[in-house]
Amino acid sequence: MKVAVLGAGAWGTALAKILVEGGHDVTVWARHPERVATLATTGMNERYLPGIPVPGLHRVESDVRHASQNCECIVVAVPSKAFLEVTSSLRDFRGILVSVTKGIEYDTGLTMCGVLGQTVPEGKRVALSGPTLALEVAKGIPTASVVAGDDEEARQTVQQLFHRPSFRVYTSSDPLGVELGGALKNVVAIAAGSGDGLGLGDNSKAALLTRGIVEIRRLGVACGAQAETFAGLSGLGDLTVTCYSKLSRNRMFGERVGRGERPADIVAKSVAVAEGYPTARAAYQLAKNLRVSTPIIDEVYAVLYEGKNVARAFQDLTHRETKAED
Amino acid sequence: MKVAVLGAGAWGTALAKILVEGGHDVTVWARHPERVATLATTGMNERYLPGIPVPGLHRVESDVRHASQNCECIVVAVPSKAFLEVTSSLRDFRGILVSVTKGIEYDTGLTMCGVLGQTVPEGKRVALSGPTLALEVAKGIPTASVVAGDDEEARQTVQQLFHRPSFRVYTSSDPLGVELGGALKNVVAIAAGSGDGLGLGDNSKAALLTRGIVEIRRLGVACGAQAETFAGLSGLGDLTVTCYSKLSRNRMFGERVGRGERPADIVAKSVAVAEGYPTARAAYQLAKNLRVSTPIIDEVYAVLYEGKNVARAFQDLTHRETKAED
Repeated sequence: MKVAVLGAGAWGTALAKILVEGGHDVTVWARHPERVATLATTGMNERYLPGIPVPGLHRVESDVRHASQNCECIVVAVPSKAFLEVTSSLRDFRGILVSVTKGIEYDTGLTMCGVLGQTVPEGKRVALSGPTLALEVAKGIPTASVVAGDDEEARQTVQQLFHRPSFRVYTSSDPLGVELGGALKNVVAIAAGSGDGLGLGDNSKAALLTRGIVEIRRLGVACGAQAETFAGLSGLGDLTVTCYSKLSRNRMFGERVGRGERPADIVAKSVAVAEGYPTARAAYQLAKNLRVSTPIIDEVYAVLYEGKNVARAFQDLTHRETKAED
Repeated sequence: MKVAVLGAGAWGTALAKILVEGGHDVTVWARHPERVATLATTGMNERYLPGIPVPGLHRVESDVRHASQNCECIVVAVPSKAFLEVTSSLRDFRGILVSVTKGIEYDTGLTMCGVLGQTVPEGKRVALSGPTLALEVAKGIPTASVVAGDDEEARQTVQQLFHRPSFRVYTSSDPLGVELGGALKNVVAIAAGSGDGLGLGDNSKAALLTRGIVEIRRLGVACGAQAETFAGLSGLGDLTVTCYSKLSRNRMFGERVGRGERPADIVAKSVAVAEGYPTARAAYQLAKNLRVSTPIIDEVYAVLYEGKNVARAFQDLTHRETKAED
C-alpha cells in the first residue's frame, strides 16, 4: 500500500520503519527535512531515534500535499499543537487517516480524530494508540497496540497495515475512549514522575496510578466514551508504561518538575514534546465544563500553570477525605 | 485496643509498627521467637526488615493462644501454607480477625478469609490488602490500602485501627474480590518478572499487565467477586506495584526464573515466601474447574510446575490470535 507518514519525530519514524518492513511504499513528510537528512542517506534519524537503523526510508518530503499524493493511507504523527495546521492541507483526501498523536485541543475539547473530522471531512479516521514507546518499537521489542475507529473496514485495513510479529495490533470500536485514554494518561504520568522527583515510593505511585485511571475513566465517560475502553491497552496499558518507563517523556517531565525545575523552562529547553503539558490545561478545562471531579488533573494543572508547589500538591492529594474505594 | 499480630515476617512487623504508633497494645506471635529476638531488645527485626527501627514491640510470644488472650482483634500475617494450622487454634475467638495473607488454598480454592470461616466460625473476618510493600510501610512512606469484609462495623473498626497519616485505609464491601485480586496478582507478577529476566521491554510489560488484570477479573467474577473491585487498590494497584517494584518478592522470583534458575531451587533457597508460587498452582486448578480462560496463569503454571521453557511460554502467549480488545 502507498502510505505517507506526516512527521519524522521518534514515533513517526518508528511507525514508518514498521511499514517499510511490512513491504509498504512509504513517504515521510518532515517540516524541516534538513533536520532528518540522515534518514534518506545513512538510514538513521539521529535527532529523534539516535543509534537505531531505519533503512528504506528514501523519500523525505517537505510539502504535505506532495508527500501524500496518490496515497491510500496517511499517518499523522505531528505534535498536537501542529495537528490542525498540517491536516488542513489534506481537506479533499478520501482515504484512511491514522492519527497517532495523543492530545486534546484546548479551545474545542476535541481529540485528534475530532480535529480530523473538521479538517478532512471525507477521510476515514482511525486512531492508533497503546503502550508503544517509540524506541522499543523501532528496536523490534514485542509491543501491543490498538487501532480504533467508527469504520470497521478502515480499522481492519489499518490493523493489517501495521501488524508485524513484534507489533501486535488489536482493534476497538471506541475511538473516543482510545484517544482520551492516550491523551489523559500523560497528565497522570506527569504526576507520577513528580512523585519520582520528590522521592516518593512504589506504594504511593501504585495508589496514584489506580486513582488516576478512575479519574481518566470518569472524565472519558462524561465525554461519551465507553468505560471498558479505559481498562484496555490505550487506557491502563499506556498509563502504566508512561508512569513507569525511564523512556517516557511525560514521566521525565514530571520528574524534573518534582525536582524543582520550572515547567515553562523545561518546555522551552526540550527537543521533543511532552504532550501532557498542553493536555493538562485542556483536560482541566474539559473537566470543569463537564463538572467532573478530577483531583489529580486539578493538582497537575495547578503545579504547571498556577505555580503551585509540587510537594504541597501531593500533600493536598493524599489528605483528601476518602472512606470507601468507589 | 488490645491487638495480636500473628507472624513476625516483614509484613506482620510493619503492621505491628503502625499499630504501636497508633497507640495500641500489641503482642506479636512468632513461630521461632529466637529468630526475631532483636525485636523486643534493640527494636529491630534484623531477619525480615533489616535496618528499620520498629520500637515498642516488647511482647513476642511463641504460643498463639497466649499471644491472643483478651485481644479484641487478631491480625493474621503468616504464609498461606501455615494459615490453616495457625488459625485452627483460635477456634473460639469471637472478635475481629484481619487476614493480611495473599493466597488461595489449593484443595478448596478458598481465600484466607474463606479458611477463617472454617477455622474460626464465630470471628468477624476482614481482609487488609493493596499496594503495600512492607519495607515502604515500615519506613513511613505514604501508602494506600483497603480493608474489606461483610460486616460493616468490623471493617470500619479496622479502618480506624490502622489509619495513620502515611497509611490511608479505604473500605470495600467485596472481601472475595479484594482477596482474589491480592492473591492472583502475584501470579501475573511472576510473569512480569520473567519478562524482566528475559530482557523484554517496557511495552511488553505494560501489555502483560493490561491483559493480566483482564484475566484476574474474569476468574474473580467467575468465583463470585464484583468486577469493579479489580480496578481498585487490591487489584490494579497491587498488581502494578508488584510487577514494577524492585522490592517485590514475586517479581524478583519471576526475574530469576526468566534468567534460567529452576523454580523449585529458588523456593528452597529463599528466606521469605513468594506466594505466587503456590498461588499459580491453585489458580490454574480453579480456572480449570470453573472453565475460565486464563492464558497468562496457564503459562506461569506450565513454567513453574511442568518445566516449560520460559522464553517459549512468552512466545506462545504473544502469538495467540487476537483481533478485538475485548
